[in-house]
Amino acid sequence: MKAADKIIQNNNAGKFICIGLDPDINKIPKHLLSYPSPITAFNKSIIEETSEYAAAYKLNFAFYESLGSRGFDIIEETLSFIPNHILTIGDAKRGDIENTSKMYAKSVFEHFNFDSVTVNPYMGKDSIDPFLQYFDKLVFFLTLTSNPGSADIEKLILKSGRFLFQEVITKINHWNQFNNCGLVFGATQNLELQDNINLFNGMPVLLPGIGEQGGNIDEIFSIFNNAGRKNFIINISRGIIYKDDSVNYSKAARNEILLLNRRIGKII
Amino acid sequence: MKAADKIIQNNNAGKFICIGLDPDINKIPKHLLSYPSPITAFNKSIIEETSEYAAAYKLNFAFYESLGSRGFDIIEETLSFIPNHILTIGDAKRGDIENTSKMYAKSVFEHFNFDSVTVNPYMGKDSIDPFLQYFDKLVFFLTLTSNPGSADIEKLILKSGRFLFQEVITKINHWNQFNNCGLVFGATQNLELQDNINLFNGMPVLLPGIGEQGGNIDEIFSIFNNAGRKNFIINISRGIIYKDDSVNYSKAARNEILLLNRRIGKII
Repeated sequence: MKAADKIIQNNNAGKFICIGLDPDINKIPKHLLSYPSPITAFNKSIIEETSEYAAAYKLNFAFYESLGSRGFDIIEETLSFIPNHILTIGDAKRGDIENTSKMYAKSVFEHFNFDSVTVNPYMGKDSIDPFLQYFDKLVFFLTLTSNPGSADIEKLILKSGRFLFQEVITKINHWNQFNNCGLVFGATQNLELQDNINLFNGMPVLLPGIGEQGGNIDEIFSIFNNAGRKNFIINISRGIIYKDDSVNYSKAARNEILLLNRRIGKII
Repeated sequence: MKAADKIIQNNNAGKFICIGLDPDINKIPKHLLSYPSPITAFNKSIIEETSEYAAAYKLNFAFYESLGSRGFDIIEETLSFIPNHILTIGDAKRGDIENTSKMYAKSVFEHFNFDSVTVNPYMGKDSIDPFLQYFDKLVFFLTLTSNPGSADIEKLILKSGRFLFQEVITKINHWNQFNNCGLVFGATQNLELQDNINLFNGMPVLLPGIGEQGGNIDEIFSIFNNAGRKNFIINISRGIIYKDDSVNYSKAARNEILLLNRRIGKII
């Protein structure tokens, strides 16, 4: 199945939540520390308890790279636990000269076999082209991000009067010749989401920033509903995986996504 | 020694060349393939033959990540061969929300102990802050890159009439409160280099794009000379490490950097 189709299929089944598997050895339940691979055990249990309800799993590479070489094995192990109909996202925010991006694309799409990747548009189209050559995969471009610093560069005003991030979205529309481009748009940027949702055209959207960062899930749904549009997933990391730090952590994660899905069911 | 001081010290000794250790298993000499760790052997031999003449070594993470978990060990092994007075650059082009950038900074500066890192400014200051908290390290921001796609976003014209990359450089000047910011500026962008060199103030500059990408080393020196300024390094990857694909590859690399240093000696 094409990566983009997984989002549509899961949306149609009422699933919009992407679980961010960003495991921090200092935050996972203490009893796991005696396991041979605590992070693997943590991810496995979270996936087993939540996969019935999740639209996607997103692995941020930073949390795995910080574990050294072992982190790469843990990415592979984690991916092996995820059922095939659920979208997997390699949250790497890559972007480099073409020769180098080719190596990154090979790593994320061939070595790990992620369905999708996040990339940074700053260096321009040729820096992302190697990713776009994988027609069945999905390439999520950073546009307007969820952090406060998004005002520094992404919201600079261009000569045309538009914000930089708006021009970036328009460029991505032009770059989308294989229908495998997606957008990352901060769930904390509701006014901008409302004003720009028509620029997205058919592209799938990944919205991080709910929870610790302050985004509100009902507002996001209301904006997408008003635009008569689906094809999006909302990422939650810490709000699900660290809901409980006892032996019940994965049951608590299951309970949290169940509650979220019920709330979503009422909205849509 | 502070990372930034290594550049000044090496420049004063007539050393301006940064060797890009971007090893590709398909391009290294065939006889190495029977070694237990061909890439480690390749890097070790290149470093041994060139370290007397090099100002810096830059490891692009893409080339190591594509080797899977083993790639991380090879980064560590490679760094152990580099003498301490030579700057090491983790070319990772990172940038993420603060919580995540903290993990990346820890990985690159604490786990690997690189002297410096490359980062992408698109997400704004808070996305880079965790790197800037390491006062003795050096953080090279992408500004105007060497690839053709740099025209897509980096050269967009702002309301102020300036190019985006110029505004990015001005912002970095403001963000440089600990004097540990540097700039990545494409060695293929000579007109722009000449026009903007005064924006750099004291910040060190890393210039990639010589060789395969078309940059010219004499022109770069002439621009820096005319501005009465040093504190820069010029990266060459393929033009040095793949100069020869026989058993003489590392001698050929040594010979190439020797020739470059002689040429530079005549210019400065």
